[in-house]
Amino acid sequence: MIDLNADLGEHYGVYRLGNDERLMPYITSANIACGFHAGDADVMDKTVKLCKKYGVRVGAHPGYEDLKGFGRRNIPMTNEALVHMIVYQVGAMQGVCDYNGVVLTHVKPHGALYNYLADNFEASYAVANALKSMDKGYILYGLSGSETERAASTVDIPFYAEVFSDRGYTENGRLVDRRSKEAFIEDVDQGVERMVKLVETGCIESVSGSRIKLAANTICLHGDGEHALEFAEKLHRAFYVR
Amino acid sequence: MIDLNADLGEHYGVYRLGNDERLMPYITSANIACGFHAGDADVMDKTVKLCKKYGVRVGAHPGYEDLKGFGRRNIPMTNEALVHMIVYQVGAMQGVCDYNGVVLTHVKPHGALYNYLADNFEASYAVANALKSMDKGYILYGLSGSETERAASTVDIPFYAEVFSDRGYTENGRLVDRRSKEAFIEDVDQGVERMVKLVETGCIESVSGSRIKLAANTICLHGDGEHALEFAEKLHRAFYVR
Amino acid sequence: MIDLNADLGEHYGVYRLGNDERLMPYITSANIACGFHAGDADVMDKTVKLCKKYGVRVGAHPGYEDLKGFGRRNIPMTNEALVHMIVYQVGAMQGVCDYNGVVLTHVKPHGALYNYLADNFEASYAVANALKSMDKGYILYGLSGSETERAASTVDIPFYAEVFSDRGYTENGRLVDRRSKEAFIEDVDQGVERMVKLVETGCIESVSGSRIKLAANTICLHGDGEHALEFAEKLHRAFYVR
Amino acid sequence: MIDLNADLGEHYGVYRLGNDERLMPYITSANIACGFHAGDADVMDKTVKLCKKYGVRVGAHPGYEDLKGFGRRNIPMTNEALVHMIVYQVGAMQGVCDYNGVVLTHVKPHGALYNYLADNFEASYAVANALKSMDKGYILYGLSGSETERAASTVDIPFYAEVFSDRGYTENGRLVDRRSKEAFIEDVDQGVERMVKLVETGCIESVSGSRIKLAANTICLHGDGEHALEFAEKLHRAFYVR
Repeated sequence: MIDLNADLGEHYGVYRLGNDERLMPYITSANIACGFHAGDADVMDKTVKLCKKYGVRVGAHPGYEDLKGFGRRNIPMTNEALVHMIVYQVGAMQGVCDYNGVVLTHVKPHGALYNYLADNFEASYAVANALKSMDKGYILYGLSGSETERAASTVDIPFYAEVFSDRGYTENGRLVDRRSKEAFIEDVDQGVERMVKLVETGCIESVSGSRIKLAANTICLHGDGEHALEFAEKLHRAFYVR
Repeated sequence: MIDLNADLGEHYGVYRLGNDERLMPYITSANIACGFHAGDADVMDKTVKLCKKYGVRVGAHPGYEDLKGFGRRNIPMTNEALVHMIVYQVGAMQGVCDYNGVVLTHVKPHGALYNYLADNFEASYAVANALKSMDKGYILYGLSGSETERAASTVDIPFYAEVFSDRGYTENGRLVDRRSKEAFIEDVDQGVERMVKLVETGCIESVSGSRIKLAANTICLHGDGEHALEFAEKLHRAFYVR
Repeated sequence: MIDLNADLGEHYGVYRLGNDERLMPYITSANIACGFHAGDADVMDKTVKLCKKYGVRVGAHPGYEDLKGFGRRNIPMTNEALVHMIVYQVGAMQGVCDYNGVVLTHVKPHGALYNYLADNFEASYAVANALKSMDKGYILYGLSGSETERAASTVDIPFYAEVFSDRGYTENGRLVDRRSKEAFIEDVDQGVERMVKLVETGCIESVSGSRIKLAANTICLHGDGEHALEFAEKLHRAFYVR
Repeated sequence: MIDLNADLGEHYGVYRLGNDERLMPYITSANIACGFHAGDADVMDKTVKLCKKYGVRVGAHPGYEDLKGFGRRNIPMTNEALVHMIVYQVGAMQGVCDYNGVVLTHVKPHGALYNYLADNFEASYAVANALKSMDKGYILYGLSGSETERAASTVDIPFYAEVFSDRGYTENGRLVDRRSKEAFIEDVDQGVERMVKLVETGCIESVSGSRIKLAANTICLHGDGEHALEFAEKLHRAFYVR
């Protein structure tokens, strides 16, 4: 069965963000912010408990140390420093999971870090090796067809190829640039239908009309878009209810 | 054999603090800052590698989230929040240890947090229970004779009673107030001699001259005092060389 | 005319808090967070521009450096450090005002800092002296009848005594403890009526039914309570429309 | 007379960096860190008092909000956000100066921000305009011959062209890349001699041996290099003692 994941636990202190509990019934995996770009120790604990209650798999969602920019700004650093930054956050999330008697199953980098790794084999390779050294069997989540996927394969660690139900794909299997009008699929039913076909056939229709192969182990559900809850509900129904 | 511990890994970014590598030959345990009151992911990794090289046991040294105040200011919070704060930091340290293939053996709270727990049974009880829930066999380090010791015993988790070679003790087995002239023992040889006797007899001479019982599993070596290295070397020689 | 103030600019990065723009038509003064307990340079600039647009007086709202706790936790520090912390934040706010060609009129400490100063003459005295040294004619806002008022008077700097429309007062002119059932006045019309009488007579009815004298230069409008907007609108109408 | 400037006040909390007081006798201007990449309110106050004591001109030294990276990492942001970030820090520094009855004379961006502005006219133009709006007559310090100089000239605000006594220059008047062996001038006397000639003639010898024109209003004295104090002393003697 395809995995349905969402980014959760993005509150901080008195600040609230997203509809964590309302998404819970529709997802199978949660990527929980680890206190660097969002989240804090209290939020992490609360979100892990929520996952436990709903039977949702728990993942770490490490990001750049940049609460002000919500981890959306690329902060230049060596691969070594990048690895330490991720190991620290994954460990912190593992600690909260240990405390709650819950398994930490996966690691999905956040925002600018996700994109940086998708385009950078060397950095992804360093991260994949670090997760291998941690020796907990963590699954790395990354963009389908990206350098992250290639690095995970090279290092031989478990990898989930992530696809997006609301995004257009180029002929090369890459996401259409956000500034293009074909970047986003506004129609929820059309987006869901694409995902169903993708899972059945292993192929998706690109913006130029051709059918391209695309690995898909997990679908990203956005937490705060306009159609977020509708998308979540319909994707869940398409894959888990019928 | 008595354990000799020191607080290490207190650098941050470009800032240096303490003489970590010079202390290494004389200690048996290191308490490594976890990024809240000092330390960062790079420093943690470097310090764990240093411990691995010298065969020194690695512990987490969690503190209040207060780099500006170096964890020396008490920040009021609920016991629940305090537990989350500690679990997060211990997890982060565990992650760095996993990455380096090193065992994380113990947890020693830092500064104001250490003192707060020493005087507060409820908070210590919550922390001891949290460590028990994490289920890694972490040893809690705390002030000998403190509420932390009582809580660890109640919860039944491993505990190391910590004593100080350079501090005077009251008749009740508590540290003499820092503002008193009898608070500190300046003479290194006298301080070392007291520790040797304490380990042999289980008793220490209080400031009033009486002999009092004092549990002692580990001696704290300061990292940055004037006599720090001299104390470290002589304590190490007294217990591990002769 | 009585001043109507509200705490604004409490967003941070992607996080939103409060209804700044909706309150604007009803207030005469804004206390803008300065980046320590809430707010950031972008939010400060935006909020100052909003005040300029609506003709609302701009004040600095300095707090403890504690985004996680929203400045609601007391962080122990020397009066000297407390002064530096406030001077820094007031200066930053003044910088944003200079940049926008707007006058910075006042300083209202936030949260735990406000309460700490209200009860502590020495600290308030240090702060009042610091504002005097800055020599910009800043008005200090503080709790009516508090040590802050007494210190401002002693130092001889302008002071606005603040009162609360939704709070009960003791016979000594102090706020009824929040845990008491008489602490809050739920009825908006009753709260407004009390303020009108207070401004007309200089007296307010205490919880024991006696009439007590209470200085009142400014009324605090809460930004995020249930009745916040209703209170704001009715207070504004009572004082500025009829 | 040529200005001799140094970056000071780079301590943070318990952490020390640089030899502020030892440099004081040799400099005419100090650029004081504003709490974003280094420094804090206590350090700022202390450093301003030091400048007052030695009669050294006080400048703000704003940087990226990145204590971990010491402001040496470029953090992408809009020009608008960059302006807010600088205005905030300059204001905070102005506040500390107001408190101490000291004039804030100039603004020198730090580290990655300095370099980013040197190469970027649009960003420099936005910053120059912001300083103009603040209307305090602040002098902008920037790399001689850079886009910052051009922007300051376009906006018509006071500008000090900065040169480096220990760096090689290309034929275009730019600093030789740090990775080149000709980037640094190790010999102190040679470095000082170059500066004396530059001030006398308005020209400097480039790495290719040609004489090039180079504006020079201020010379940067490094605070923590090996030869820092020697350079400082000899430059000071060359310009202010003979």
